[in-house]
Amino acid sequence: MGDIAYGVHSEVGRLNKVLVCRPGLGHERLTPSNSDALLFDDVLWVQNAQRDHADFVRKLQDRGVEVVELHDLLAETLAVPGARAWLLDRKITANEVGSGLVHDTRAFLDTLDHAALVEHLIGGLSTRDLPTEFRSGHLALVRESAGVTEYLMPPLPNTIYTRDTTCWIYGGLTLNPLYWPARHDETLLMKSIYEFHPDYTGNTIWWGDPELDWGQATLEGGDVMPVGNGVVLIGMSERTSRHAITQLSERLFAAGAAERVVVAGMPKLRAAMHLDTVFTFADRDLVTYYPDIVDGISTFSLRAADAGGVEVTEEKAAFIDVVAESLGLPRLRAVEPGGGWYAGERQQWDSGNNAVAVEPGVVFTYDRNTYTNELLRNAGVEVIEIVGAELGRGRGGGHCMTCPISRDPVDY
Amino acid sequence: MGDIAYGVHSEVGRLNKVLVCRPGLGHERLTPSNSDALLFDDVLWVQNAQRDHADFVRKLQDRGVEVVELHDLLAETLAVPGARAWLLDRKITANEVGSGLVHDTRAFLDTLDHAALVEHLIGGLSTRDLPTEFRSGHLALVRESAGVTEYLMPPLPNTIYTRDTTCWIYGGLTLNPLYWPARHDETLLMKSIYEFHPDYTGNTIWWGDPELDWGQATLEGGDVMPVGNGVVLIGMSERTSRHAITQLSERLFAAGAAERVVVAGMPKLRAAMHLDTVFTFADRDLVTYYPDIVDGISTFSLRAADAGGVEVTEEKAAFIDVVAESLGLPRLRAVEPGGGWYAGERQQWDSGNNAVAVEPGVVFTYDRNTYTNELLRNAGVEVIEIVGAELGRGRGGGHCMTCPISRDPVDY
Amino acid sequence: MGDIAYGVHSEVGRLNKVLVCRPGLGHERLTPSNSDALLFDDVLWVQNAQRDHADFVRKLQDRGVEVVELHDLLAETLAVPGARAWLLDRKITANEVGSGLVHDTRAFLDTLDHAALVEHLIGGLSTRDLPTEFRSGHLALVRESAGVTEYLMPPLPNTIYTRDTTCWIYGGLTLNPLYWPARHDETLLMKSIYEFHPDYTGNTIWWGDPELDWGQATLEGGDVMPVGNGVVLIGMSERTSRHAITQLSERLFAAGAAERVVVAGMPKLRAAMHLDTVFTFADRDLVTYYPDIVDGISTFSLRAADAGGVEVTEEKAAFIDVVAESLGLPRLRAVEPGGGWYAGERQQWDSGNNAVAVEPGVVFTYDRNTYTNELLRNAGVEVIEIVGAELGRGRGGGHCMTCPISRDPVDY
Amino acid sequence: MGDIAYGVHSEVGRLNKVLVCRPGLGHERLTPSNSDALLFDDVLWVQNAQRDHADFVRKLQDRGVEVVELHDLLAETLAVPGARAWLLDRKITANEVGSGLVHDTRAFLDTLDHAALVEHLIGGLSTRDLPTEFRSGHLALVRESAGVTEYLMPPLPNTIYTRDTTCWIYGGLTLNPLYWPARHDETLLMKSIYEFHPDYTGNTIWWGDPELDWGQATLEGGDVMPVGNGVVLIGMSERTSRHAITQLSERLFAAGAAERVVVAGMPKLRAAMHLDTVFTFADRDLVTYYPDIVDGISTFSLRAADAGGVEVTEEKAAFIDVVAESLGLPRLRAVEPGGGWYAGERQQWDSGNNAVAVEPGVVFTYDRNTYTNELLRNAGVEVIEIVGAELGRGRGGGHCMTCPISRDPVDY
Repeated sequence: MGDIAYGVHSEVGRLNKVLVCRPGLGHERLTPSNSDALLFDDVLWVQNAQRDHADFVRKLQDRGVEVVELHDLLAETLAVPGARAWLLDRKITANEVGSGLVHDTRAFLDTLDHAALVEHLIGGLSTRDLPTEFRSGHLALVRESAGVTEYLMPPLPNTIYTRDTTCWIYGGLTLNPLYWPARHDETLLMKSIYEFHPDYTGNTIWWGDPELDWGQATLEGGDVMPVGNGVVLIGMSERTSRHAITQLSERLFAAGAAERVVVAGMPKLRAAMHLDTVFTFADRDLVTYYPDIVDGISTFSLRAADAGGVEVTEEKAAFIDVVAESLGLPRLRAVEPGGGWYAGERQQWDSGNNAVAVEPGVVFTYDRNTYTNELLRNAGVEVIEIVGAELGRGRGGGHCMTCPISRDPVDY
Repeated sequence: MGDIAYGVHSEVGRLNKVLVCRPGLGHERLTPSNSDALLFDDVLWVQNAQRDHADFVRKLQDRGVEVVELHDLLAETLAVPGARAWLLDRKITANEVGSGLVHDTRAFLDTLDHAALVEHLIGGLSTRDLPTEFRSGHLALVRESAGVTEYLMPPLPNTIYTRDTTCWIYGGLTLNPLYWPARHDETLLMKSIYEFHPDYTGNTIWWGDPELDWGQATLEGGDVMPVGNGVVLIGMSERTSRHAITQLSERLFAAGAAERVVVAGMPKLRAAMHLDTVFTFADRDLVTYYPDIVDGISTFSLRAADAGGVEVTEEKAAFIDVVAESLGLPRLRAVEPGGGWYAGERQQWDSGNNAVAVEPGVVFTYDRNTYTNELLRNAGVEVIEIVGAELGRGRGGGHCMTCPISRDPVDY
Repeated sequence: MGDIAYGVHSEVGRLNKVLVCRPGLGHERLTPSNSDALLFDDVLWVQNAQRDHADFVRKLQDRGVEVVELHDLLAETLAVPGARAWLLDRKITANEVGSGLVHDTRAFLDTLDHAALVEHLIGGLSTRDLPTEFRSGHLALVRESAGVTEYLMPPLPNTIYTRDTTCWIYGGLTLNPLYWPARHDETLLMKSIYEFHPDYTGNTIWWGDPELDWGQATLEGGDVMPVGNGVVLIGMSERTSRHAITQLSERLFAAGAAERVVVAGMPKLRAAMHLDTVFTFADRDLVTYYPDIVDGISTFSLRAADAGGVEVTEEKAAFIDVVAESLGLPRLRAVEPGGGWYAGERQQWDSGNNAVAVEPGVVFTYDRNTYTNELLRNAGVEVIEIVGAELGRGRGGGHCMTCPISRDPVDY
Repeated sequence: MGDIAYGVHSEVGRLNKVLVCRPGLGHERLTPSNSDALLFDDVLWVQNAQRDHADFVRKLQDRGVEVVELHDLLAETLAVPGARAWLLDRKITANEVGSGLVHDTRAFLDTLDHAALVEHLIGGLSTRDLPTEFRSGHLALVRESAGVTEYLMPPLPNTIYTRDTTCWIYGGLTLNPLYWPARHDETLLMKSIYEFHPDYTGNTIWWGDPELDWGQATLEGGDVMPVGNGVVLIGMSERTSRHAITQLSERLFAAGAAERVVVAGMPKLRAAMHLDTVFTFADRDLVTYYPDIVDGISTFSLRAADAGGVEVTEEKAAFIDVVAESLGLPRLRAVEPGGGWYAGERQQWDSGNNAVAVEPGVVFTYDRNTYTNELLRNAGVEVIEIVGAELGRGRGGGHCMTCPISRDPVDY
């Protein structure tokens, strides 16, 4: 497992190790006509996005964070005996590529080295990618199919948001069933790492498995915050359902890993929004938040019921006050977007409230949210800016693009 | 199994037995704001839709067709020992109703007789339906959830289109993985019948199982026509994928149940449309079709490959001509919608080409497609009209609303 | 002017004379692909819609109402010297049909008798309607144009909602600038009647003129109710703007025609909805209303300001209570849709609250809103049902389809 | 008029003088929730957009182009006696701001100097901008109105696309009626300049006047290219209608200003796209174009008819070949986007084909279209790059952002 103990014990404690994923082939294939189907908001200039992402990584490293990258990690995983076959057996099936194409597709992929295979596992495999010698008459059916079916493996451009797929919650993790079927295979890639990669095997999985059908129970990491003091905040939204939250809570309570889950019931009009797009921590007792949404949150506390299972308490106080109380703080200091009526909505849109901390009071945010960044600085926070012109087009910021693997607790 | 041999051997041979499903509770819950989520096009006046559906059934019976109704069949199935538990074990789970609500929900359903339970299995179970004694604190989470989550079992209003869920193809049937996740449980209800109901057990299942995950392989019966002469027509659309078509073809070829599958690659602009919304048979050699779409179909023939698997041939001729050739006919007579430019599109929309035959040259259609009906009559077809004012609002006609269980062959 | 004094002095007083418009050519041209552009919600079976509309007219006549029909009225108008040229000079222009097509189009229309011309004035003139001898090379440009440009005169299917275009408010009327540019010519047709038809000339026009550009000032009659007691209710919505309401109010106050305008600020989420889709009178002190919307109305009273212009008062009380107070009533009796949670939204959608009275306590509504109709009957109202299966598809009911020209006051 | 003779005689001749408009207040008010209503595709970082626009201007000036800026020009115009009142009389009316707000609004604007007034004329005037002393009770109505009605003057963020509003075509210009009503006032601002500013009065207006209603006749400059040799290319799209094209052609032919108009009938599926988003000139005989759209263009030639009016000829050859022939060239060299299947669509989206020339073979384009830029360079073109990260978000490039006022002819 390496030197660092894995586990995430707060939102702002010293960040020791983090998983990211650089932009790549999948983004080069995003076009205005397929971006809806691929669940990505906009087309980005991939070269510049890669440059800005590398700069983000470098600055994290400058702060002493160990950064692991998904392509690299997957390539290392594929080199483990059994891993490559395990993954391809699950990806290259009659249900996914079509029965007449399984053999040829697998044969082509077998010609690739690990790194090249990873490019396609993440960036997708188009029928256009198949060399002539692997092209049978079945490709004619693909060409005439409706929908985004030119792909034998669809691109997974949302892997840059490593936050969503797995969540370390205190000493264990989840393998999340994501809301959109088109993103399910992101979690399968992560499972291969936790099953095979020597640095990642042997950990406690609280909940989730990409090989099972979870029905209405969906969970995305942008909604999950293990804030410390035995508390986990979870946004309940279209993407993260009560079905998942209660199951996960039961597991955490049963294992003694948490005592209380504070559920943030997101307003229905913005159902698809993760909690971390409107609310993140910048310091031990300081959050940046978007009041237009956060003020509409309905709050619940889940605790272990005596008879087993989970007990639900509706909270009367405002969400932020419940969070403060749960941490034993008299109150949370809160930074709103700033800049007035229009600028607030603009900055939320540009991930202005999606800060990620590397230690208490030190956060990464996009450069373009000048008002919010200034207010954070006025509040004593050190703000390290990264360029958001391209990275921000997918509607995620620093918090979305990082999956902490090891983070220290803070005292409450 | 009863007196009639099950199996569907043509599109127009004598229809001996057919499955339908009357409108009900699910349609009473359709509103303008939830109809998208429930995958139904419009709100209908349920009382009148029931009246018109009953009239349809009566007229089928008058023509000597044995009509079975889904609510009735399910209620009979639930009475079979083991069936009720089998179905509820699969419906009332932590993934579907939420872990804190499983016990109460099951307890309430246990108070219902079979017929009442069937109403909820098809029409959905809203949290509003739970009597006070079954209401725990977990219901507060439901209330604040986003999405169509007020349901513990979502309504399945598309069950009136019995055509989609299972297909008898010659001597066996399929249990179809439908395209939309919200419709998957329709097939589960059908499986319970074929697993437990004494009249329906013991049949050959060619392909499909609602308890497995079929990935990209989706199939809907509106795209499937076992026309006879060893041929099956299958529309390839957004809803019915090449992944499913090739798998099913392999099974049919391997069993010797069919020799050729003619694939109708639907134009991409109208990806969601079933083949039977634009093309149905009215007589042995007579179809009604909508040229604006059908003329854009790309046609393929699938046959058993020598090496196993399926061989794909791109057809050069027009779809209708390939169909004629596959049946050994010199040509098909074809009736277009009629009434000119505007009326054609209007009638296709109103299911004008969605005829269902009870014997060669005798079809049921909606009354409102007056031009097409007249042209069919001019072509020598007996057209029996049913009222479409309400039933037609879900965008399906007589063909969609019927699942033939026993139909005779015709000579080709 | 005939025997009846024109003017509308209440919402429920004896209805003496009313304008309607039967479905016709414009509806025969509605298709799923053009209905958005033509601003009509659904495709309807025109023959049956005509039958049901004729039945509505007959039942109005049975109640002693004089019914005039728009096609008839326009044909009579065209027969007045000067009228036909006046209207065609405004319709057949280079800006509307294209400079190369003006001559041919006008030449073709000159071959038509008045009744046939009216069919096209209301139902539209497609390039397909032009006989060969009127087809120049310019038609090739039309064919290749984008948008709904196959029309030389676009269909006006919303003329069946005669309520919107002109409003009699006490002793005068308005010629409304409608919200959607595609509907502007409806008002032009009405202006030709009030300019030329001997029964309709010489009336007081409070406000509006389809030949002027009104900018943001738009008004639709579904939002206007001259309830009596010197009061006018006006819904403020996306379609009826504050710009129009204040201008009209100034005119009414200046003429002494009204003392108070009660503005119903419609909730923003359902901006496009007219007041009469959620609130109509069934008797002197009885309304049928849809609380989900009406409870969200912000209410204002406008009165003449001392310095000229209009004075705005924000009302604290609920809309219905302000209306009662404005009429000098202690309270209004109110009938909600009935049938519970789902049925309420369904009936509002089906124009369940869109009743039109022929005298106090006698209203016309659609048959399909069975719950609301029963509640109205329980409240002592005589409910005369008309068939809504087709007419209701445009999302308007009896109130929308009638433009009262003469209605008696009631005492308050 | 200054030293330079106004007039635009080609697409690639030496550019002497050009009108641009810097991003500003209107863009600061764009939010995800109002950008649809304000007709702008995305939210941009205004500070950076301004920086990149200034860089664009500087580089144009470095190439010897005289650049005039719309805010500056308008401020100079307002200083001309009569101009300020002329404009405010047309903007601050009962139809636009509401009758109760005209006086206060005008009074507030009267307190502003010319430059400050220009900020609001272009960037909009929100009710939030009104100081306390100008706030009457009528503002309560505004607050409760539906739609984008918080504005007394709506923002005009599309003014940065100066190309659309006026077109110099050889020796005269047009004042274009734009397609969307929300953009009409852009042309009014331009009219004030051509009516009052001493450098701009006295020019020939071929067609158009923002104070008249042009009905279906709409024209946008992105569709208009006076290429030389007596030819004008005009895209016929949803935004630029045949009604406008034929009227303008008649005027040009009658004045002897052009001999032939080549109409590019844009494919209907992308109806809203201007010709210059898929086809621009980079040199005398070199264009950059997007074949997926351009190959679908239907081409027509308009010429003066003997009897007056316009004669329409359908062209059989491909659009690019007709253009070459009209210029007397054997053929046009053509640069496609480059980079393969996905990159082509991506670059068209990012305005890759929207080049603007400052002289033959020297063009400005966005930096992000690296493939297309490289291919242009390979074809011998000097490509000057400007930063598109923010400016490009409105979906317009260098061609859209420039309105040539004086450009030399080239020889053909």
